[in-house]
Amino acid sequence: MNYFWVMSGSTFGKIFKISTFGESHGKGIGLVIDGCPAGITLDETFIQSELSRRRPGQSAIVTQRKEPDQAEIYSGVFEGKTTGTPIGIFIPNTNQKSKDYNHIKDKFRPSHADFTYEEKYGIRDYRGGGRSSARETAARVAAGAIAKLILTHYDIKVKAFVSQVGPIKWTGSWSDIDHEIIEKNIVRAPDQETADKMETYIKGIRKAGDTIGGKISCIIENCPVGLGEPVFDKLHADLGKAMLSINAVKGFEYGSGFDALSMLGSEHNDKFYEENGKVKTETNYSGGIQGGISNGMPIYFNVAFKPVATIMQNQDSLDKNLEKSIVEGKGRHDPCVVPRAVPIVEAMAALVITDHLLRNRSVKI
Amino acid sequence: MNYFWVMSGSTFGKIFKISTFGESHGKGIGLVIDGCPAGITLDETFIQSELSRRRPGQSAIVTQRKEPDQAEIYSGVFEGKTTGTPIGIFIPNTNQKSKDYNHIKDKFRPSHADFTYEEKYGIRDYRGGGRSSARETAARVAAGAIAKLILTHYDIKVKAFVSQVGPIKWTGSWSDIDHEIIEKNIVRAPDQETADKMETYIKGIRKAGDTIGGKISCIIENCPVGLGEPVFDKLHADLGKAMLSINAVKGFEYGSGFDALSMLGSEHNDKFYEENGKVKTETNYSGGIQGGISNGMPIYFNVAFKPVATIMQNQDSLDKNLEKSIVEGKGRHDPCVVPRAVPIVEAMAALVITDHLLRNRSVKI
Amino acid sequence: MNYFWVMSGSTFGKIFKISTFGESHGKGIGLVIDGCPAGITLDETFIQSELSRRRPGQSAIVTQRKEPDQAEIYSGVFEGKTTGTPIGIFIPNTNQKSKDYNHIKDKFRPSHADFTYEEKYGIRDYRGGGRSSARETAARVAAGAIAKLILTHYDIKVKAFVSQVGPIKWTGSWSDIDHEIIEKNIVRAPDQETADKMETYIKGIRKAGDTIGGKISCIIENCPVGLGEPVFDKLHADLGKAMLSINAVKGFEYGSGFDALSMLGSEHNDKFYEENGKVKTETNYSGGIQGGISNGMPIYFNVAFKPVATIMQNQDSLDKNLEKSIVEGKGRHDPCVVPRAVPIVEAMAALVITDHLLRNRSVKI
Amino acid sequence: MNYFWVMSGSTFGKIFKISTFGESHGKGIGLVIDGCPAGITLDETFIQSELSRRRPGQSAIVTQRKEPDQAEIYSGVFEGKTTGTPIGIFIPNTNQKSKDYNHIKDKFRPSHADFTYEEKYGIRDYRGGGRSSARETAARVAAGAIAKLILTHYDIKVKAFVSQVGPIKWTGSWSDIDHEIIEKNIVRAPDQETADKMETYIKGIRKAGDTIGGKISCIIENCPVGLGEPVFDKLHADLGKAMLSINAVKGFEYGSGFDALSMLGSEHNDKFYEENGKVKTETNYSGGIQGGISNGMPIYFNVAFKPVATIMQNQDSLDKNLEKSIVEGKGRHDPCVVPRAVPIVEAMAALVITDHLLRNRSVKI
Repeated sequence: MNYFWVMSGSTFGKIFKISTFGESHGKGIGLVIDGCPAGITLDETFIQSELSRRRPGQSAIVTQRKEPDQAEIYSGVFEGKTTGTPIGIFIPNTNQKSKDYNHIKDKFRPSHADFTYEEKYGIRDYRGGGRSSARETAARVAAGAIAKLILTHYDIKVKAFVSQVGPIKWTGSWSDIDHEIIEKNIVRAPDQETADKMETYIKGIRKAGDTIGGKISCIIENCPVGLGEPVFDKLHADLGKAMLSINAVKGFEYGSGFDALSMLGSEHNDKFYEENGKVKTETNYSGGIQGGISNGMPIYFNVAFKPVATIMQNQDSLDKNLEKSIVEGKGRHDPCVVPRAVPIVEAMAALVITDHLLRNRSVKI
Repeated sequence: MNYFWVMSGSTFGKIFKISTFGESHGKGIGLVIDGCPAGITLDETFIQSELSRRRPGQSAIVTQRKEPDQAEIYSGVFEGKTTGTPIGIFIPNTNQKSKDYNHIKDKFRPSHADFTYEEKYGIRDYRGGGRSSARETAARVAAGAIAKLILTHYDIKVKAFVSQVGPIKWTGSWSDIDHEIIEKNIVRAPDQETADKMETYIKGIRKAGDTIGGKISCIIENCPVGLGEPVFDKLHADLGKAMLSINAVKGFEYGSGFDALSMLGSEHNDKFYEENGKVKTETNYSGGIQGGISNGMPIYFNVAFKPVATIMQNQDSLDKNLEKSIVEGKGRHDPCVVPRAVPIVEAMAALVITDHLLRNRSVKI
Repeated sequence: MNYFWVMSGSTFGKIFKISTFGESHGKGIGLVIDGCPAGITLDETFIQSELSRRRPGQSAIVTQRKEPDQAEIYSGVFEGKTTGTPIGIFIPNTNQKSKDYNHIKDKFRPSHADFTYEEKYGIRDYRGGGRSSARETAARVAAGAIAKLILTHYDIKVKAFVSQVGPIKWTGSWSDIDHEIIEKNIVRAPDQETADKMETYIKGIRKAGDTIGGKISCIIENCPVGLGEPVFDKLHADLGKAMLSINAVKGFEYGSGFDALSMLGSEHNDKFYEENGKVKTETNYSGGIQGGISNGMPIYFNVAFKPVATIMQNQDSLDKNLEKSIVEGKGRHDPCVVPRAVPIVEAMAALVITDHLLRNRSVKI
Repeated sequence: MNYFWVMSGSTFGKIFKISTFGESHGKGIGLVIDGCPAGITLDETFIQSELSRRRPGQSAIVTQRKEPDQAEIYSGVFEGKTTGTPIGIFIPNTNQKSKDYNHIKDKFRPSHADFTYEEKYGIRDYRGGGRSSARETAARVAAGAIAKLILTHYDIKVKAFVSQVGPIKWTGSWSDIDHEIIEKNIVRAPDQETADKMETYIKGIRKAGDTIGGKISCIIENCPVGLGEPVFDKLHADLGKAMLSINAVKGFEYGSGFDALSMLGSEHNDKFYEENGKVKTETNYSGGIQGGISNGMPIYFNVAFKPVATIMQNQDSLDKNLEKSIVEGKGRHDPCVVPRAVPIVEAMAALVITDHLLRNRSVKI
């Protein structure tokens, strides 16, 4: 090999900083958190429960791969509490069927990262997509769980849910979401009726050997005023980057989002009022963020996911030698990614809020 | 004062790193580029022409403030070429009418950053929005001009245009955009007919003392394969953050974007083919990026801008003491931000591409 | 030009982050501070007085160049107080005699950075050393002055002085330094007798057309317990990097330093005792830092400076074509760098302590 | 607990970036390398051999703890080669005798990090020093081994050795070091006679239940011209920080170092000459670095280590309640740290050189 290439893009956050590692079919997925405050009681059961929400095989509408995703904490915790030193976590891979991927070893699957990784690095672990696999997000969910434990101290709540699957849209109100319902249906929709329609729709898609896109919405409640660091590290800019870094995401909007295109200033402006000594706004088109800084109102945003690229159909493609080639449709895959992506969206949101919380501390002289 | 607060969010990029400074009504706006390659011929006329595209007072549909925005280069250039040392640039403020802002000194303008800055920092330069003013983007445009000069060496082109103003939408094709036309109309729309409709619409909005949102689309042509650093610094994630960091932006989507929500995998997947030894795709729903890495196809994305918050109408609001107060509608402001934001979108896109180009260099042993 | 090169090494600090720019004979020297807390009263007279301590022409034993070094504050300050937004500062060059450098335009001066800059960047501003000139440290002194203003709120004192010039050594005690005396002699030695000897010695060196090395010692008093971020960002590691980044520095030691080589553990260990509820140590070989974290005792360290490379003698050298060439000894230069480097050492120390102070804040839940 | 504290100081490097984690008596020590080039053949035997050079129990003059330090590579490698994705490595702890530390659970050992960690984080893993233990350097040695594999492609050699133990000094010449001899004696001195004296001296110190300081010298040969990023990230400044971040280090000097204090400019200046088209210097007081950038000559530096703080003698100290307390001298510890620190110094030097090599790549247009 005459050339080699470089990357260092697996680190996220400035104070609460995570670095993830691992591939889909290597020994496992892991991470280091450098910058976790000391003295946090680390509830391993909670971390595990978050991982289970992302885990394959959890329901009839997701991939049937069996991955227990058991996190081992290697460091940074003593007698149940964080010590302020780096937290190392490892989630061993246990159910890889690497042979399932021999057929694509030398082929570029359409709309996957096979071609770009091959070109960028000159080498790639083709098994299950290697590093480009969404399996990497298990590390994010583990980190996000710890972030949520910190946010609990501030009573900040991060809740995501599925708001669209193909043509089926949730039409409810942001101010009226019941987190209990979300976790009681396998789609993670905010009401049972929508959930049922989505479930039926996804099952039809799976039967057709196809996949479908979807939307996840997220709301962050009780965020204090003052988070976000203009001009580049605006709170919504960091939330946007966090969401866009999740596999399969194609778009991000917050507050009024793309609806703002056709709104007038006179209707879009959020009128301030005072309530119990706190500043609030009558409407919330700002999405809880003004000038890149949280204003105390709920933060809400939408994330667009494309349909999963692996379909159960044969597709024309190219191989490494740029010869025509057929990519067969096989393996165990999700017909729609959004039900399992809900905890990932929450995790990334929790990481951004925690990092900004730690960046924004007041100092008493 | 018993407390103070901290921020450091005015730095962008990892290798081609910019730090901006300056307020709307202070001495001026400036920046440092730390990490510009050596040996680039620095065309000051080009930098100035880019600044003029962003400049107030350039046409009948933008704010009539007169700001020449003359950039002075302080360092990093010797005998017309960059030396690899930091480039300091300063753009003096010359047409501030700070008294225009006395009426909002102690008031929180709706959907502006007055309240959040006041809360975060305990102090704020209220004149013209201070640091939160879009005037800061002049520094970005100057930096972006230098980035474009670097991209010229690679024949990479970054072109943005206005694709929607309120209800008026551009309906043309991505593959058929004429950059010449864009700069020949004051809206910066990609065809004259749409431009005319938008111009008329904006003039009506101004007359009504109101403002309107809009959309900017951007296409990056001839980007080499391999830019973008998974898993967090995916090319589109950094583009998204860059766009969301621009004042008034509410959303970002690339490739199929939010349309992907209702697409099937079988229609969304981009089929590979070979042409003259290069890998191409028949469709380009991926938006030129797969797995976070550029695949050589055109990169394209949309950016949603909210209506300008300053309207020529009186609005109910609060003052610093949380007493009810009226914010008067006066001053010289844009009825619609998108015509002047086109060069800002291009600048931020050029900064991201340049930074990733420099992060991704192959090494010959 | 077929190649170009990249650098981004002009940024220092993680929270209190400075970026400097400017060359010796360009338009001036400047900096941006991104991350300065809001609400600090910015005493411009103090900044100016610190710059005057570094300024050429201040006494008979330093370079006789006349540089007023007047700092202009461009941003980040409103009504006399910092606003938490980036502080831009510019110090115009006014007394450059660029023609003085025509004779070295194509030559590599011995032990200067001419050769390495030429090789690294393929281009260099040869006038007065360009970016490699110690003139850049004016920006550091300005930043350090602001850092000192912050440290004042914590009653932390940073004091440096000249402890050796060639063979003349200060032999006094760390616990008995009178800052008043330091600033009352032109060498900045801590007692008048040593100062007199050093002054005489330096004058002799100048007369001989030669230069001499020297040592600066620094003590930081009243630093709170807890600053420093193991394992890499240990407080002394960051202090060491800061000092080594100053022009002409060849070595750094803290606490027992190189004397520790021949000490036994039983004599080197600092015995703890309690005084008024505070933990102290009987000796302080640790230099106020244990495990990379300040322990509340005074922090002290030494910095070794080489003799100035520009001597008033002709020297054999090479030119750009690698032909033999004579470098003439002329211009206005310091015979010994340490008297003017005292405020630079203090500035860099203040920057490190301030940055770590801001990195180490406790959070009340 | 009412407060908590934050740190993120366990990440080193800008392009070749490592994050370490783990404590002395936790599950193990690990690291992530984010930014390793793709296509490097990863020689696990070499990594293991480097770890064995640092390993306890390797000879009669070091601690007799038995730690096999077997590294497990978790990710980033496929079919024997690096893939450009993060490399996760874990070294399980296997021989901890945590009960050995019960006696210091509530005590502050003199000149250890017990007191500062307790104050900074409010909690600490007291077993074997926890995170402050030099056991963390195992991760650095593993990372450094991979860096060395990269440097091999450039024929760059990094060699360290013990040059002083207490009063016993190596008096040989930098230009005449035989790496074979270094590894053939248990002290790692560069000649057998010095090694014998040092060995005898260390055995005497151990017998006395005491410890002794020492010096490690390091030389980097064949480093290309151009590494180092002024003005802050000068090559020697980053080397200095790297060395000072190693446990027990008190000082760093490069080239002439502290000897420069009493040298004249006329003797210190390194005269350039040309040899086979390459620029060289007759002397090398610059230590291979001018203006912060490597000049192609050998880079050499010295590192001062204090005597190990744990001695086999009872010492007066304080406990957590600030009551007087006796710290007993027991356990398995090194009488002198330098023999085992040689590979650590090499590892940190290799990490700095590799990082700067990757930061400094020329780009062909």
